Amino acid sequence: MNEMIYDEMIIVDALEYNNWNRALFEETRDAGLSCIHVTCASWEGTQAALENISQWYPFFRKNEDLILHVKKASDILQAKAEGKIGVVLGFQNGSPLENNLSLVEVFQRLGIRIIQLTYNNQNAIGGGCYEKNDTGLSRFGREVVIEMNRCGLLIDLSHSGERTCLDAIAFSQKPVAITHANPSVFHKAARNKSDRILQALSENGGVLGFVLYPHLIGGSRTTLESFCDMIYQIANRIGIDHVGFGSDLTLNWPEEHVQWLRMGRWTYTEDLGPASPDQPGWPEWPEWFQDSSGFRNLFKGLLEKEFSAQEMKKILGENWLRLFAETFSPE
Amino acid sequence: MNEMIYDEMIIVDALEYNNWNRALFEETRDAGLSCIHVTCASWEGTQAALENISQWYPFFRKNEDLILHVKKASDILQAKAEGKIGVVLGFQNGSPLENNLSLVEVFQRLGIRIIQLTYNNQNAIGGGCYEKNDTGLSRFGREVVIEMNRCGLLIDLSHSGERTCLDAIAFSQKPVAITHANPSVFHKAARNKSDRILQALSENGGVLGFVLYPHLIGGSRTTLESFCDMIYQIANRIGIDHVGFGSDLTLNWPEEHVQWLRMGRWTYTEDLGPASPDQPGWPEWPEWFQDSSGFRNLFKGLLEKEFSAQEMKKILGENWLRLFAETFSPE
Repeated sequence: MNEMIYDEMIIVDALEYNNWNRALFEETRDAGLSCIHVTCASWEGTQAALENISQWYPFFRKNEDLILHVKKASDILQAKAEGKIGVVLGFQNGSPLENNLSLVEVFQRLGIRIIQLTYNNQNAIGGGCYEKNDTGLSRFGREVVIEMNRCGLLIDLSHSGERTCLDAIAFSQKPVAITHANPSVFHKAARNKSDRILQALSENGGVLGFVLYPHLIGGSRTTLESFCDMIYQIANRIGIDHVGFGSDLTLNWPEEHVQWLRMGRWTYTEDLGPASPDQPGWPEWPEWFQDSSGFRNLFKGLLEKEFSAQEMKKILGENWLRLFAETFSPE
Repeated sequence: MNEMIYDEMIIVDALEYNNWNRALFEETRDAGLSCIHVTCASWEGTQAALENISQWYPFFRKNEDLILHVKKASDILQAKAEGKIGVVLGFQNGSPLENNLSLVEVFQRLGIRIIQLTYNNQNAIGGGCYEKNDTGLSRFGREVVIEMNRCGLLIDLSHSGERTCLDAIAFSQKPVAITHANPSVFHKAARNKSDRILQALSENGGVLGFVLYPHLIGGSRTTLESFCDMIYQIANRIGIDHVGFGSDLTLNWPEEHVQWLRMGRWTYTEDLGPASPDQPGWPEWPEWFQDSSGFRNLFKGLLEKEFSAQEMKKILGENWLRLFAETFSPE
């Protein structure tokens, strides 16, 4: 049981959507994490995405004792060795590509390593999870998948529609990610994923990041035990190599920011996304997952299941490490 | 027959995609035209579209003896009275809106009066005519239609897919345009329109602009007579109030520009659009429609049909004038 020491494991959170500052990264380090995937665009076009990315460079310099820009998977091992957090820059939408295939390479050179093809709505690439109709990958969408494979960018499908997920998994020459979503069998929501998607994801070598966002687990009163039960069942079903975490933590945002996430600037009519009129704002999180330190609770919860030390390591971070190594460009 | 004088009629070409300069507008004026719809964006995002629009303002000032920026339909009557060309600024793609609904009003204030929802490919609004799958209007697409109705912008569907055309016609509170396409029954092409679309367009009060682009009429050897036969049949079928012209003339471009039209920057693989490998470049135009002066030939061709003077006027320009009056903002 000596191998079952949380602080010796590589813990990866494949999506935290916090309004980042130094204090939050200190808390994340103290929570034992070695890698976080952060968001540089949700609804933005090229110009605004460039501005968002550009703010990370001075932030990395100013906090080089604490965080490290992850460009290749082994940077995460370096971060772990140095007691730092490796930060993977990503987009939650292909919108910054606009109609320009060459921008895939531009963003790769700027240090982006993950792009979610679509975010809730349809875009030039494919369909989103809240669209009534999803075409799957468009003509441009297929080109983007080929180019992301070539350039070394990981494809993320967390907010994509059913058919776009299936198309992208089938069409991609590299394994893909669902960095932050749950199986629909655990909680039915447009954002969660069907058995069919999870099976295809696993067969393609990809990884599902279980999400803690309250609307996607059935609310804040969902227990740690039932959540870990689900992880155990899904790991058995789709394979221990294909599961991880992507909490989707949303710390430090003002109340009104939740509207940007849901409505961007695409509508004048209120859209609540996964929320409901009685709870339109940021949701309440489970007491066992209030911030990154909740990973210690997840660790304890998973210990109650029949996972080996090797399996625990895979779930908590090494599956992401393997997927990043297979998909991120070597540079 | 006194009323049948070409030079007294208001002639509108609802799309000319020329690389405009003063000489071309002089030729257009000499050809007897009073209004042209020109293109300020095909694949562009917000920033590039703003740059394209901004170039028209000094051009209007420098050539105020010759051209006039059309903001309301009656500006075309003024242009006719003054022997000038009224120029309607439009987009052939909703891409300059990116994900921002408020940009509809921004572009209206800048003088744009027509936006084609999609251009060949899928975008955030809907599907394009060359996509295998067309979702119809997306969530954002429905918002854009509502906002274009409100702001006084005419919806154009020339390059949109079947379902997006039908959706937009059904959903729009105002009549819409197909500024430049032909009926599929005349020539089968992904860019041409089904009977179902034309019927719906007519019932909604819209106007179809017959296009002269060679790939959409069956090639340069198509005769003026067969083209005018088709116009006569279609006018009888969908109503004399619902037909006009949108030639899609493409004068004064370098050879390689045709690739921008088809491929923008969305693919590294050659895409020929409506062309074929044996004729990959700009197509050859019929001898009876080499430039705007071809409208005189169209006039002669139509005279052979049983159109009244009033019907001739409608086809050659007054239907567009009526549609612009019903849809352009009054300002």
